[in-house]
Amino acid sequence: MADLFERHQALLERAVKALHEREFWAPFPEIPSGKIYGETARAEGDAAYTALLGQAFDLPAHPESRRLGAEVSPFGPDLGITYPAADAATLIAAAKAAAPALAAASPRLRVGVCIEILTRLNRISFLLANATMHTTGQAFAMAFQAGGPHAQDRGLEAVAMAWDEMTRFATSARWEKPQGKAAPIVLEKHWTLVPAGVALTIGCNTFPTWNSYPGIFASLATGNPVIVKPHPAAILPLAITVQIARAVLAEAGLPADAVLLAVDERGAEITTQLATDPAVKLIDYTGSNAFGSWLRANATQAQVFTEEAGVNTITIGGTDDFAGMCANLAFSLALYSGQMCTAPQNIYVPQAGIETDQGHKSFDEVAEGIAAAIDALLADPARAAGVCGAIANPATQDRLQQARGFGRVIRDTGAAGEGRTGSPLLLAVTSEDPVAEAECFGPITFLVATRDADEGIALASGLAAQRGAITAALYDTDEARIDRAIAAFAGAGVNLSINLTGNIYVNQSAAFSDFHVTGANPAGNASLTDTAFVATRFRRAMWRRPVAH
Amino acid sequence: MADLFERHQALLERAVKALHEREFWAPFPEIPSGKIYGETARAEGDAAYTALLGQAFDLPAHPESRRLGAEVSPFGPDLGITYPAADAATLIAAAKAAAPALAAASPRLRVGVCIEILTRLNRISFLLANATMHTTGQAFAMAFQAGGPHAQDRGLEAVAMAWDEMTRFATSARWEKPQGKAAPIVLEKHWTLVPAGVALTIGCNTFPTWNSYPGIFASLATGNPVIVKPHPAAILPLAITVQIARAVLAEAGLPADAVLLAVDERGAEITTQLATDPAVKLIDYTGSNAFGSWLRANATQAQVFTEEAGVNTITIGGTDDFAGMCANLAFSLALYSGQMCTAPQNIYVPQAGIETDQGHKSFDEVAEGIAAAIDALLADPARAAGVCGAIANPATQDRLQQARGFGRVIRDTGAAGEGRTGSPLLLAVTSEDPVAEAECFGPITFLVATRDADEGIALASGLAAQRGAITAALYDTDEARIDRAIAAFAGAGVNLSINLTGNIYVNQSAAFSDFHVTGANPAGNASLTDTAFVATRFRRAMWRRPVAH
Repeated sequence: MADLFERHQALLERAVKALHEREFWAPFPEIPSGKIYGETARAEGDAAYTALLGQAFDLPAHPESRRLGAEVSPFGPDLGITYPAADAATLIAAAKAAAPALAAASPRLRVGVCIEILTRLNRISFLLANATMHTTGQAFAMAFQAGGPHAQDRGLEAVAMAWDEMTRFATSARWEKPQGKAAPIVLEKHWTLVPAGVALTIGCNTFPTWNSYPGIFASLATGNPVIVKPHPAAILPLAITVQIARAVLAEAGLPADAVLLAVDERGAEITTQLATDPAVKLIDYTGSNAFGSWLRANATQAQVFTEEAGVNTITIGGTDDFAGMCANLAFSLALYSGQMCTAPQNIYVPQAGIETDQGHKSFDEVAEGIAAAIDALLADPARAAGVCGAIANPATQDRLQQARGFGRVIRDTGAAGEGRTGSPLLLAVTSEDPVAEAECFGPITFLVATRDADEGIALASGLAAQRGAITAALYDTDEARIDRAIAAFAGAGVNLSINLTGNIYVNQSAAFSDFHVTGANPAGNASLTDTAFVATRFRRAMWRRPVAH
Repeated sequence: MADLFERHQALLERAVKALHEREFWAPFPEIPSGKIYGETARAEGDAAYTALLGQAFDLPAHPESRRLGAEVSPFGPDLGITYPAADAATLIAAAKAAAPALAAASPRLRVGVCIEILTRLNRISFLLANATMHTTGQAFAMAFQAGGPHAQDRGLEAVAMAWDEMTRFATSARWEKPQGKAAPIVLEKHWTLVPAGVALTIGCNTFPTWNSYPGIFASLATGNPVIVKPHPAAILPLAITVQIARAVLAEAGLPADAVLLAVDERGAEITTQLATDPAVKLIDYTGSNAFGSWLRANATQAQVFTEEAGVNTITIGGTDDFAGMCANLAFSLALYSGQMCTAPQNIYVPQAGIETDQGHKSFDEVAEGIAAAIDALLADPARAAGVCGAIANPATQDRLQQARGFGRVIRDTGAAGEGRTGSPLLLAVTSEDPVAEAECFGPITFLVATRDADEGIALASGLAAQRGAITAALYDTDEARIDRAIAAFAGAGVNLSINLTGNIYVNQSAAFSDFHVTGANPAGNASLTDTAFVATRFRRAMWRRPVAH
């Protein structure tokens, strides 16, 4: 096998440069085009996916005491795939056995292996798209992007950050201390990178690869064996990932068990056993605040990196493009039926209305403008299906039905495409109504009437600080108020998008440019991918001795 | 006031370079020489110290509800100094009030302020030496170095690391995403640094400045107001530090309350109230594992950076300089009466003895060689006082007396200079004896007989992994065994010094080269000063908007 590091060195160096400059750079093409991925790639991906259905998924030499798997596509069919399963103790033991060889491997080799895994994953992006679509409910185009190249971008970002950090300081030095007229003291010093221990990545139902790759690749690059624990409803995308990773590891002469799959069943999850094992020193988690808090309180032997939940907001103060604003918001609310961690929930609108390029718009006119834009976006059933996808979790659909009673209905939810669906529900509430102060996951939007735009900014930023937020957006034409909003949302530690119209949405977070989640409010303590995300996954131990004269 | 950043920019840039290269660099001269510090500096420092004794310490505009202070020099006299004291809630409120202005200050200004504080502290190093000597029991020469320039070096190191991290990524970017034949999407993006919150630094009795400066300056540089909580027995060095810091802050137009002093009394400490306050987001702590664990379990709202305790070891496999080895160990054991966090406690010696340049030496001959070297080092009373200093805490002297019954006495403890003293106690024990498996703080050394040198390496590295260790040392001539030891101690996450003789000791940790504490074993979770020490003290919040066409 050729030197993997050298094979990927140019890509790595470009990635490190992009990390520092934060300009647009996307190493893995997001367009599901035959011109890019090969004219047969789509058909091959479909065939590969179909071939997996109803079969025992193959993970050579993986620990296995039984087979588990009960995935059901939100679009209808059972997947019928079974995966090798083992108890927590067996998986931990396998990871520990793999640890010394992984620790002893050079950062060059580990980084080379990681990028090789990512480039192989990129080649099967159409398979990953099908696997993501039928476990998350994302429509195909989104599943391709979010399950494939965008996840791979985030994986490479983590590898680049890990490499930048592992090579930040000299690994050896000649330390020469003057001693006046006497001969200097001369020591040679050498630093060894010491991985933290076994890593656990806990995947989520909605973005199994996108949210898991940063933790998996940051841990693996820095020498920690990784146990990948998928959500029981979204195993396949991560099983494919683990399969590729194990193959590359083995080819590189490293233990395949440096990446393991921890499959369990709903109601009999092994997450808590894995998370509290003394050997587990790193946990990457995407999910609820409740389980995030549980991990911090109970998995005290580990560092816990989280993306949790919050309440994302839009504050409207005014616009010089009312139609563009409404169309942009309509897409943000409808995309994947509001199941993105970046999707807005609350829209703060002054009760007296706003000034726009179409003249004054009352509160209700703003609400109706957004509702009408959603209707227009979803008028064509095929397009509606392509935007909304399906609802991943039946509980979300239940919540959506209950939420219809939470306020004055501006736009009711309805079917949107195939399978378990729900188009955006828009409700008007007052700023005193506590219903808008908590996350209400799914295609549910509260239009909150505020005294004025500044109160909207105060409520939105205050909620971000108190309950967490991953995104915030503002539409305004008053530059002084925009400046106040920038300060308020920065103070709340939330990323702010201002006056987005056209083909760019508040939901979107671009690898190598946008830090995803700030770590500065309750919506998560980790940021993709900043220094802190990688810096404590390994430590440095020195040896020093006098230089022979 | 001239631009502080520009005034110190060359020093900062040199410091950042040193951080990366890890070669010898010491910005603040360690020699208490009139040629360097001015011929009158020593006399002025002595006079300034004397003038403080028996007086009310002046901290202009500092919160004050009463006066506290009951410091007693380990060399005898009461200091008689009182300090302004306020309850925890008052101090937290003052820190919170200072936070917005500090957060709004540019990193340039904050870094300029930090370096100005350090350079002013450097100018009063003789005063700090007296203050350190009479609160810690360090002899004057050591108090000068450890309380003055070496602490200032570590402070500058933290500032340089913070600056390097705050400037690591672009603070703004033009993000231009191609859209095929359509016009690209162009956004401007800007990142604001968001400080974590109020910082608390909990000082220790033995190294009040050296161990506190990294946390204080890392937090201050990254925009967090700092409450400095000294050990009740070692207030003065940190009170002087706070005094200077507040003066520089005020001169720079920043709130003096960005640095506060939290003085309390033994038995009525306010540490737990401060540490668990919801506003406190950063805690730097040096002290016992027990309180470190308490902080992790109870101060869950904060990030906790610790240096705790462990068992430092020497493993002897052989030497080609027996006299040099014994002399080096004698100094390491006697220096500051073993009260350094880096001082060795256990010495592992093969029961069958070792090969040396003086021929075979039995276990007892090795033990006697070290004992004789201690006797020689301390034969001159003035030199003994200069090496051993005094015992900071009466409890350490009690422990020393009890320890005389813990094994076969090779060398008994005795007086060593003035005040509360104790020369090194050497005890021989077996490798099965559990007494050597826990920290026994003070001038107490266990010579542990091992089956062979490899067992010594296994015991020493195993203890480091299990109980923690800040330093380890090895004397050996067998290069293959040295390689095995390097791997074993790196695996235990402990820094290793090999074959030190002459004027360089395992106790010594050099800023800008040695990472102090690895963070990879129970002796502490933070490393001075690596990336992780600064990276989570602030976060980045973005705002982005379309670029006007």
